[in-house]
Amino acid sequence: VVTLLAELISIGTELLLGEIIDSNAAFLAQQLKARGVALHWKTVVGDNLGRACEALERALGRADLVIVGGGLGPTDDDLTREAIAAVVGETPVIDEGYLAQLRAFFESRGRHMPAQNSKQAWLLPSSEALANPIGTAPGWLVRPASHPGKMIVALPGPPTEMKRMWREQLLGRIAWPVAGFYSRTLRTIAIGESHVTELLGALTQAANPSVATYARRDGVHVRIAASAPSQDLASVLAAPVIEQVEASLSRYIYGYDDDSLAQVVGNLLKANTQSVAAIESLTGGLLLDELTGIAGASAYVVGGAVTYTDQMKVQFGVNPATIAAHGAISRETALEMAEAARSRFGSTWGLATTGVAGPDPSEGKAVGTVYIAIAGPMGSHASELKLIGERRTIKERTVFALLGLLWRNLRGEAQ
Amino acid sequence: VVTLLAELISIGTELLLGEIIDSNAAFLAQQLKARGVALHWKTVVGDNLGRACEALERALGRADLVIVGGGLGPTDDDLTREAIAAVVGETPVIDEGYLAQLRAFFESRGRHMPAQNSKQAWLLPSSEALANPIGTAPGWLVRPASHPGKMIVALPGPPTEMKRMWREQLLGRIAWPVAGFYSRTLRTIAIGESHVTELLGALTQAANPSVATYARRDGVHVRIAASAPSQDLASVLAAPVIEQVEASLSRYIYGYDDDSLAQVVGNLLKANTQSVAAIESLTGGLLLDELTGIAGASAYVVGGAVTYTDQMKVQFGVNPATIAAHGAISRETALEMAEAARSRFGSTWGLATTGVAGPDPSEGKAVGTVYIAIAGPMGSHASELKLIGERRTIKERTVFALLGLLWRNLRGEAQ
Repeated sequence: VVTLLAELISIGTELLLGEIIDSNAAFLAQQLKARGVALHWKTVVGDNLGRACEALERALGRADLVIVGGGLGPTDDDLTREAIAAVVGETPVIDEGYLAQLRAFFESRGRHMPAQNSKQAWLLPSSEALANPIGTAPGWLVRPASHPGKMIVALPGPPTEMKRMWREQLLGRIAWPVAGFYSRTLRTIAIGESHVTELLGALTQAANPSVATYARRDGVHVRIAASAPSQDLASVLAAPVIEQVEASLSRYIYGYDDDSLAQVVGNLLKANTQSVAAIESLTGGLLLDELTGIAGASAYVVGGAVTYTDQMKVQFGVNPATIAAHGAISRETALEMAEAARSRFGSTWGLATTGVAGPDPSEGKAVGTVYIAIAGPMGSHASELKLIGERRTIKERTVFALLGLLWRNLRGEAQ
Repeated sequence: VVTLLAELISIGTELLLGEIIDSNAAFLAQQLKARGVALHWKTVVGDNLGRACEALERALGRADLVIVGGGLGPTDDDLTREAIAAVVGETPVIDEGYLAQLRAFFESRGRHMPAQNSKQAWLLPSSEALANPIGTAPGWLVRPASHPGKMIVALPGPPTEMKRMWREQLLGRIAWPVAGFYSRTLRTIAIGESHVTELLGALTQAANPSVATYARRDGVHVRIAASAPSQDLASVLAAPVIEQVEASLSRYIYGYDDDSLAQVVGNLLKANTQSVAAIESLTGGLLLDELTGIAGASAYVVGGAVTYTDQMKVQFGVNPATIAAHGAISRETALEMAEAARSRFGSTWGLATTGVAGPDPSEGKAVGTVYIAIAGPMGSHASELKLIGERRTIKERTVFALLGLLWRNLRGEAQ
């Protein structure tokens, strides 16, 4: 089995000042994972030659492939080339062919090449240039004589330049391990992370396949990942574990990998030629926004209303006596709102939310007290939730809890 | 001058798999910089005890303040407490007081505390707990006897929990260096980044104070930052530049620093005892969600409707002849929707959106064709937008364009 261990180094003082978020790292991590490359460390350093060299040396000591992002610009701050040259003990030389290209690049844009840009035409005896058709900084692939078997890749910082260079220049130049990696994410709703872990028991302790849980705003995700000499074998290795997780959590799993709850619900509505409408109080439009975020949602989302005042709730069909007796934040009001959504908008399903998003209590009810309701062909039903978090979190959790309720109803499960 | 050198460690395999982007690091970096703390290194490791310990040890060797993010959950994957305990050579003990709080936290939400959560009540002899009012994981501030003069801070991974703990629990516990730094962000709407840069001219080329522009979903932000021996001096240095920027961009500036457009608009509505309602098609609830995202929004948001079908638009007051003559995606329909929002919901202002979010054209109109409209005491007005981007981007830009239009109307400016 060929194994390859990679390490990422991002160079740029702007990263350490919080001026930009390093989104390149997520792209590179995903690319490496998909090619069976393990990644144990990522380091960020500023535009400082000493620290860049220190990070490079340490990375070369523990990884086979060191990927350096940023620091390839023409200014004195851009020190990636200098750091690599120092660590591998080589002297940069100007590549006359690339220098001519660089001059032509500037001239084609009606500009004269500043003298400092000539360092972008540097090469090392052990490096090859990775062309950058959309910027001035070429990348480097270095196979240093000083560190036999190791590779250093230098990529530009701007994401569009980096991604294009990665795909067009680098992928074909490296012998990636047989991609003996397989992973699948199971997405659950209406169950907490601790309960998921309890149901999974010893499964989460195995190393290969590994089973990990992640609490996300749209529910708990469970990720099964396996490594093996080939991707087929990894998938064979993962299959029985995936089946066990599915068996343990079946009634909570709404989708796989990139499925979203709104998309899954939308597909079921479309398949049943059914429709949905909502009357929102607490969530203030977020539920309808989530439902209409799916391309083609107009086929099954009729519409809805945001009723932020008692008067508006009554105007849309809630009995004023219900609000007087139980309050606007109550199971009874939620139920009437859901029924009103269904009848006013003429949809198969009516959804409703009411509750206290905070920061202050309302009607003597605590922040996080939420009622969600669903009305459908078989009747209507409301649930109380006790949610934790800030205003935004409470709105989000309510939306996903209610979409989960709709999903279970669409599958014909008991409420 | 007191100097303080910090180092960041993020712990989480999901970061090394590219599943999430580490946005916490940018927040922490900004906070440190504003307090005069230097940051030279940031390291990311997976959920691996050995590597977490190695990263911690190295960081303690070269920094005064080591901030560890993530890994404070209740599961076996969450190893931050274990790693800190190992590196400082102390044994965790359960804090009975916190354990009781944790149990009460679960019970108040009608749930039983899973056994594994008890490790969230761990403390070390040299650690104090940082309370987490919106989650189960408290943070730690460790002043280890093994490393005199050094501090380790452990913060939870979820950004809302981390930021609140940072502000409310940590800031007051650490003696920060004299903060000779001052920055102010001016937030603009209804003007593009290149136009902003043009109006600012040579201002963006100075180093101290520096002036930088950032294109954000809610408009272009302009950040003025100054460094000086003290914060007062830095603020004095920045003041004339801020005034120049304000003079250049005055009619586009809606707020400062963390002001949001929805908050600014909400404040104006409250000050005028006015109200707003909306009928949304294209934006599908996102406009109302943004308006109701502000605490206290119920004082001025009456409500609104999402009308995703022609029939629903008519039911809410659009003349069917208008749709027949001009289409649902038209200036005329948008105008009638805004007027209907105002009259149906009895609000001072009525807002409306209609358009093509994509991915496919509609009514023969291209993706990104959008009409926004506003109806108010002085009449009504609609604008056409031609937006670029994906479905979500088009929805977001439409919302902020319309909030910008409402803001200008609330300030009494010509439409």
